[in-house]
Amino acid sequence: MAVFIASRRVSRGSMTTSFLAESLCSTAASFRRYSSSFREERDTFGPIHVPSDKLWGAQTQRSLQNFDIGGERERMPEPIIRAFGILKRCAAKVNMEYGLDLSIGRAIMQAAQEVAEGKLNDHFPLVVWQTGSGTQSNMNANEVIANRAAEILGHKRGEKFVHPNDHVNRSQSSNDTFPTVMHIAAAMEINSRLVPKLKQLHTTLHSKSVEFKDIVKIGRTHTQDATPLTLGQEFSGYTTQVKYGIDRVLCTLPRMYQLAQGGTAVGTGLNTKKGFDKKIATAVSEETNLPFVTAENKFEALAAHDAFVETSGALNTIATSLMKIANDIRFLGSGPRCGLGELILPENEPGSSIMPGKVNPTQCEALTMVCAQVMGNHVAVTVGGSNGHFELNVFKPMIANNVLHSLRLLGDASASFENNCARGIQANRERISKLLHESLMLVTSLNPKIGYDNAASVAKTAHKEGSTLKEAALKLGVLTSDEFDQLVVPEKMISPSD
Amino acid sequence: MAVFIASRRVSRGSMTTSFLAESLCSTAASFRRYSSSFREERDTFGPIHVPSDKLWGAQTQRSLQNFDIGGERERMPEPIIRAFGILKRCAAKVNMEYGLDLSIGRAIMQAAQEVAEGKLNDHFPLVVWQTGSGTQSNMNANEVIANRAAEILGHKRGEKFVHPNDHVNRSQSSNDTFPTVMHIAAAMEINSRLVPKLKQLHTTLHSKSVEFKDIVKIGRTHTQDATPLTLGQEFSGYTTQVKYGIDRVLCTLPRMYQLAQGGTAVGTGLNTKKGFDKKIATAVSEETNLPFVTAENKFEALAAHDAFVETSGALNTIATSLMKIANDIRFLGSGPRCGLGELILPENEPGSSIMPGKVNPTQCEALTMVCAQVMGNHVAVTVGGSNGHFELNVFKPMIANNVLHSLRLLGDASASFENNCARGIQANRERISKLLHESLMLVTSLNPKIGYDNAASVAKTAHKEGSTLKEAALKLGVLTSDEFDQLVVPEKMISPSD
Amino acid sequence: MAVFIASRRVSRGSMTTSFLAESLCSTAASFRRYSSSFREERDTFGPIHVPSDKLWGAQTQRSLQNFDIGGERERMPEPIIRAFGILKRCAAKVNMEYGLDLSIGRAIMQAAQEVAEGKLNDHFPLVVWQTGSGTQSNMNANEVIANRAAEILGHKRGEKFVHPNDHVNRSQSSNDTFPTVMHIAAAMEINSRLVPKLKQLHTTLHSKSVEFKDIVKIGRTHTQDATPLTLGQEFSGYTTQVKYGIDRVLCTLPRMYQLAQGGTAVGTGLNTKKGFDKKIATAVSEETNLPFVTAENKFEALAAHDAFVETSGALNTIATSLMKIANDIRFLGSGPRCGLGELILPENEPGSSIMPGKVNPTQCEALTMVCAQVMGNHVAVTVGGSNGHFELNVFKPMIANNVLHSLRLLGDASASFENNCARGIQANRERISKLLHESLMLVTSLNPKIGYDNAASVAKTAHKEGSTLKEAALKLGVLTSDEFDQLVVPEKMISPSD
Amino acid sequence: MAVFIASRRVSRGSMTTSFLAESLCSTAASFRRYSSSFREERDTFGPIHVPSDKLWGAQTQRSLQNFDIGGERERMPEPIIRAFGILKRCAAKVNMEYGLDLSIGRAIMQAAQEVAEGKLNDHFPLVVWQTGSGTQSNMNANEVIANRAAEILGHKRGEKFVHPNDHVNRSQSSNDTFPTVMHIAAAMEINSRLVPKLKQLHTTLHSKSVEFKDIVKIGRTHTQDATPLTLGQEFSGYTTQVKYGIDRVLCTLPRMYQLAQGGTAVGTGLNTKKGFDKKIATAVSEETNLPFVTAENKFEALAAHDAFVETSGALNTIATSLMKIANDIRFLGSGPRCGLGELILPENEPGSSIMPGKVNPTQCEALTMVCAQVMGNHVAVTVGGSNGHFELNVFKPMIANNVLHSLRLLGDASASFENNCARGIQANRERISKLLHESLMLVTSLNPKIGYDNAASVAKTAHKEGSTLKEAALKLGVLTSDEFDQLVVPEKMISPSD
Repeated sequence: MAVFIASRRVSRGSMTTSFLAESLCSTAASFRRYSSSFREERDTFGPIHVPSDKLWGAQTQRSLQNFDIGGERERMPEPIIRAFGILKRCAAKVNMEYGLDLSIGRAIMQAAQEVAEGKLNDHFPLVVWQTGSGTQSNMNANEVIANRAAEILGHKRGEKFVHPNDHVNRSQSSNDTFPTVMHIAAAMEINSRLVPKLKQLHTTLHSKSVEFKDIVKIGRTHTQDATPLTLGQEFSGYTTQVKYGIDRVLCTLPRMYQLAQGGTAVGTGLNTKKGFDKKIATAVSEETNLPFVTAENKFEALAAHDAFVETSGALNTIATSLMKIANDIRFLGSGPRCGLGELILPENEPGSSIMPGKVNPTQCEALTMVCAQVMGNHVAVTVGGSNGHFELNVFKPMIANNVLHSLRLLGDASASFENNCARGIQANRERISKLLHESLMLVTSLNPKIGYDNAASVAKTAHKEGSTLKEAALKLGVLTSDEFDQLVVPEKMISPSD
Repeated sequence: MAVFIASRRVSRGSMTTSFLAESLCSTAASFRRYSSSFREERDTFGPIHVPSDKLWGAQTQRSLQNFDIGGERERMPEPIIRAFGILKRCAAKVNMEYGLDLSIGRAIMQAAQEVAEGKLNDHFPLVVWQTGSGTQSNMNANEVIANRAAEILGHKRGEKFVHPNDHVNRSQSSNDTFPTVMHIAAAMEINSRLVPKLKQLHTTLHSKSVEFKDIVKIGRTHTQDATPLTLGQEFSGYTTQVKYGIDRVLCTLPRMYQLAQGGTAVGTGLNTKKGFDKKIATAVSEETNLPFVTAENKFEALAAHDAFVETSGALNTIATSLMKIANDIRFLGSGPRCGLGELILPENEPGSSIMPGKVNPTQCEALTMVCAQVMGNHVAVTVGGSNGHFELNVFKPMIANNVLHSLRLLGDASASFENNCARGIQANRERISKLLHESLMLVTSLNPKIGYDNAASVAKTAHKEGSTLKEAALKLGVLTSDEFDQLVVPEKMISPSD
Repeated sequence: MAVFIASRRVSRGSMTTSFLAESLCSTAASFRRYSSSFREERDTFGPIHVPSDKLWGAQTQRSLQNFDIGGERERMPEPIIRAFGILKRCAAKVNMEYGLDLSIGRAIMQAAQEVAEGKLNDHFPLVVWQTGSGTQSNMNANEVIANRAAEILGHKRGEKFVHPNDHVNRSQSSNDTFPTVMHIAAAMEINSRLVPKLKQLHTTLHSKSVEFKDIVKIGRTHTQDATPLTLGQEFSGYTTQVKYGIDRVLCTLPRMYQLAQGGTAVGTGLNTKKGFDKKIATAVSEETNLPFVTAENKFEALAAHDAFVETSGALNTIATSLMKIANDIRFLGSGPRCGLGELILPENEPGSSIMPGKVNPTQCEALTMVCAQVMGNHVAVTVGGSNGHFELNVFKPMIANNVLHSLRLLGDASASFENNCARGIQANRERISKLLHESLMLVTSLNPKIGYDNAASVAKTAHKEGSTLKEAALKLGVLTSDEFDQLVVPEKMISPSD
Repeated sequence: MAVFIASRRVSRGSMTTSFLAESLCSTAASFRRYSSSFREERDTFGPIHVPSDKLWGAQTQRSLQNFDIGGERERMPEPIIRAFGILKRCAAKVNMEYGLDLSIGRAIMQAAQEVAEGKLNDHFPLVVWQTGSGTQSNMNANEVIANRAAEILGHKRGEKFVHPNDHVNRSQSSNDTFPTVMHIAAAMEINSRLVPKLKQLHTTLHSKSVEFKDIVKIGRTHTQDATPLTLGQEFSGYTTQVKYGIDRVLCTLPRMYQLAQGGTAVGTGLNTKKGFDKKIATAVSEETNLPFVTAENKFEALAAHDAFVETSGALNTIATSLMKIANDIRFLGSGPRCGLGELILPENEPGSSIMPGKVNPTQCEALTMVCAQVMGNHVAVTVGGSNGHFELNVFKPMIANNVLHSLRLLGDASASFENNCARGIQANRERISKLLHESLMLVTSLNPKIGYDNAASVAKTAHKEGSTLKEAALKLGVLTSDEFDQLVVPEKMISPSD
């Protein structure tokens, strides 16, 4: 069994600790498959053993041991890993223009492409809860790509024929790469996941709005009976909320498309050549088909993540919209007998083994839980965003993780809700009609004919006796049946008059 | 002493409660000046006594008694009251086009103008914590304007010569007026208070950025020494944050400029005439010189306040920016001896009676407290925004209050910080220079000349011995004094190379 | 008109600014009543003009001018002012034991008593948004008490016969007095306002639970019809929530009762005598009849406000409870025709001028808005609590203000809800019974007799045909009418079986 | 390739959709290993294909397909799965007392034990974002245990020899089992993970406090130089914060130990026998060695999760404490040359390849990111907790997930911080001493000897000339060198005087 040494030094002290491989294994155990063999990798801290079947190097391994927080499900989210692939590929491309050896550059591009495609995900074991600059994930990307590029060129892992710092990370610093991949990942998730799914939801809600445009129903304000509207009008409100939600998140993109790359350690661009920042933004833009540009101020781009706080704010707004919509739908679909019962929701799973018609609004429940999570994630992002100091905000992985989490959940839950609930919603026309015509609110229409006082008497009588307005009106003798039917027409109460 | 009766009825029950005037007085006591005489006002609930010197009517009085929550400082914020003045003035104007008696209409316009100018603030005693639709504040406006208009026309208070509902509230419902005044108030506060003050702060920070453009200083990442930048560059980051903050809040205005007016009770526009909604939006736009339009979907405009959640999200982002900036400034100004000491902050009040030079960063403290409050207010707005049901969100006053609170605090605190701190910030050039030249980070510049290993030795020696890099380099004999001075030039480390 | 000079100095610079009295007036204008005459007061910064009719001194005046943030409604909350009265009275008492001149000490005690009774509130004009240590409010208290005590002893304001620092603030520092008054104020508000009002609400909900104990009703899970329970059982859940809420806030008191006093500037107690801390805690305890003790660790007591974050967490929990209860009650009371309609809520004001029976659940609305605010305030407190640095948290006034705001709002809104809603709630027995007996859920009772398959057929038939279970059972011929009545007894479904 | 049918029905409609197995595979793909063979399982919705190598049944499979939200990392957290094992084992044990077949009961107990030990984790594929009651995870547990128990008894999967509902879920409902496992899981994580790790951190901080008890250092308030204290005193503040944090979370346990089990569907206990609730709480208590009891009110226990909101509030308070501590430590450790530099933090990984002594406070960064996450999670829990309706809160999985997430992160990060940072912290005594003696604050000690005015002159001179106090005093001729040394003794400034 391999034994390895992790040395931890304190300035002016000397503390050396030995771990048996067991400790590595126990850490690695949470990653399910671990090696029984190890190779030696090395960084400025010295040598360290790394599982032979993994491409990562010394710094990744050290982080894995130093940050045993949260377990496997807390790994850096995949969109970040993929964005590292894109960025490192573009960096190699631009670095070749500035003198990087072409064969090495091409190998890096090929290896980075594999990362971008998610083929090397298993080689990115680090969790979110690490250095606040994301340095260790940047080094993870550098190490994996360097080792993979070396293999492509016929060299062995760990020999540093392709060097993680000198070649893969050339002209870069964690401090500019990590915010860059944050922006790439978020912009891609917005464009490829969230917006399309919200658009689909919008389309479906809009089609329901059209489908239901002639169904007049009771309105409800303060949860109480109010004047009528159509079910289509009610759904048009939801449609508008989703439409504006899309607008809101798109509004934040101009700042999300700004890339920090080229700022290096503190924003000055030390160790880069003039023009590097613009070239790399162009390369990323070409690679992703998204209009990325270089950040107009690199100091802001490293020291703050206001763009993420802003986007998270848009997601938070979308969450409030979807919470409102899902709540309405489950209340309107409540029943089957003792609720409002105006909507019939699709039945996707057994609600109860005994009671037919018990359809639990499970998609609404999943969606509203997601909304609550997005609101919470937003606070975490806000707290992290407000706590940057000097030239670097060091809540980067947490901020990225929460925004990507919110994007994923909102996108997936919108799709699930659209597919498994919204598109199958049916109006319970009988129930809607029954409630509408029982409503005392329609008495309003009688005012012009019989006067306010008589109308009020009709309503009060109906309320007191539990009868219909018509019954009350006939009983009081203020109207004939025909007159009543002519006057009380909810269909005329759903728009301004001419 | 007048005795009055408030009757509270429960359907099918009968509960009548008498209050002595003391109870009114004890409530009114929190409003400091109360009358010893009362007049009778009346609504559909019956008669109620109202202080003679107040213009409000029965519904306001009832709310005052039923919602004894929080005391005077919780009154509906003034921008809402003023916006009611604007709206009611515009409504009278448009209603005259649709047949409202011209003399009554003109009197309403005049009375409403007084409300818009804040002259009748003392007649708006209601607190935020009332009906969630803001109905009672709408009625407060209707009652005050009706009584005042009646007086203008030579009639007495309480006689309803001008009727609060039939005349002042004509073609309106609380459900569309309250969201309308929310939007008017917020848009005005953004344009007249927040944005100008942020722009002033931006200008000042930018001028500091220019003033400090040649002062090279140590950078700090992870709170640790890093490569240098100029103090001007550091301030350019702050400048950019504020600039984007202004952009962010302006981005939300297109949805804030949409007015619900014309939707009446549930969004359908029942009881209005076609075109009323557009005309009133035009009137408000003319009155305020802001590009208000009628909401494209009135159902959304009543049932949700996503526009407020969105704007609150922008304010939340600005709060994170200002928190970051104020934190940096107080840390950079920490000292006078045992902190970083790079900035000298204006001294506005005694920091300590004994220690000269102890300047507490009090403006930073006020500003960061405001930022924390804005983050909290944002959560309240989010919770309220997500809890709307059916045709009406009934968290309106709370939502409005929090957004207006945040706008006021951010505007005022930005101005205070700009005026009493930012514009007076001076650089402590000696201290900055001393720290810069003591820094071990400058060793980076030696790499090309003496190689990484020798450079590292120089740095390690300096660190170990507490000496300067130059002393260490000379001691190790790797460079001459002249060579050192030629190579180690922080001024060359603050940008990409050619 | 008096002209005064405020000098603002920057170390090594020299900037002197003159303000005309207008600027003072414009500031003071927000405080409504201002003097036309001024006297000169003086601190280490030099002389400054103060309104003659006010007791405050130079430092208060300076703060008033330097922190023009938020206006009058943002003044330091009254419980803090009163707690300063209590504390300063106790400090004088203890200081006399340690040598403070007895006549001065007694005069301070008398003046402080007036502050404690709220008689001098008008002399505390400062807003929350000031120095984060609350220094300026501490000085406000010192200055007012010193001037008032001097007057008591026959001396004039501003002469410092009684000195704000040397006498009133003796052995104290803002850094220990402000956290001390925070704890005194919060503990008093909890004991005198929140807990009694929650107890009253608990009592009322419990009595409703008893009143409704025999009313069997349909249960609802997922908002859908479920098995029955009694309305009393439903209310017993609310009762328990409120009861636990009281427990929760009481649980936090042991840490709230710990006073920082005696820690002075950084927690060491420099400038106090041994035993001072314990004596003053005892004095405060005697004065308030609450079990205050000296904090076991003064460093924690100044540098952190975890006790406030903790208490705010308890208030946040109470807010979630009350939000749930108020939501249930408004939904259960929704109608009158088209909602659930099981509860009849008291009618406190006109719901609509036309529709009888439209009772808007306005007390529920005010209460749920308060709950949302408390959740937001809690986030502000959390952000402030997490941002302390070194020996002093400087978000003190904001933290105090939010917790006191939450305490006030929760207390007042609970009382308003209890008095104007909860105690008047009536059960709509007919409606409850109708819904219960229409429910398909009762079919569960038939299983033992006719088997699952037949029972399911009955339910499905009833659901499909919109008939009752009994009609369906008779139609299918699986049971006689008598058998059905004997088996389907909701009253037997509300507890475990023997 | 297997083809399976998922039928989705809408009442009164008929919609049947066929999916090819690909769709299953694409879902299952996110779970990495999927079968190429399937077996048929069945529920009241009909038959459905399930991977042959999995123990789950029809309802789990349906949820997997209907809730494709978030992917694998969003699976129900392991402590919930394990708690289901414990609960189902206890339920079988108690059910045998009430007549459950003994051989089936024993097989269930054995299978449940395997779940409790985490051996069957791979058979729990469902995500958090499902039905808000957790029904599907309850059914997942029932199905897995039933199939596994059947195998133990020699029967095949899917044959329902042991029935998931009739046997495993006997006398239970998702509505009481899920809150029960929430409480079991949280209480176990608190006791086994969080509290031990906080205690370890407390011990380490306390030992540092003792180790540093004689190191006098400059205090800092408002981030500015203040009077001295010892480094040990400073750490004693941190120690106290952690100690109180432990108290805070323990305070919430009395309500966390209350189990909902026995309430069944709506809290009434329908379908259980009297005494079942107490017996099962006793069984769980014995199984876990924790003092669980049956909830005193089952209606509250199902309809609200205030206990989780409360515990989350305690975690939120701990997060503010740890944020403060970690921030202090990274600022006190900032440098090596241009920061405060009072602490030397352990170096766990390369901070920079070029600069020796650059130790990034990475453990502080991971910990503060965790704290921000916990604050965010708390808001999600609050929103979920406040949105329960009627007899059932349907944000259960989200609430449980967030609290368990916070518990895990706080526990792990505290351990990581303790092990990799706190225990290795060293004081930089030279630096501390240098700063202390340079401080102008010490001038306070001269007051009694030379008077305030002379003392102030000394301080001002030193500040202006950048000299030491001693140099200034000697220059001004107010003291001899010996006198100065005798008077200025920081060690005498760190406690009250006798």
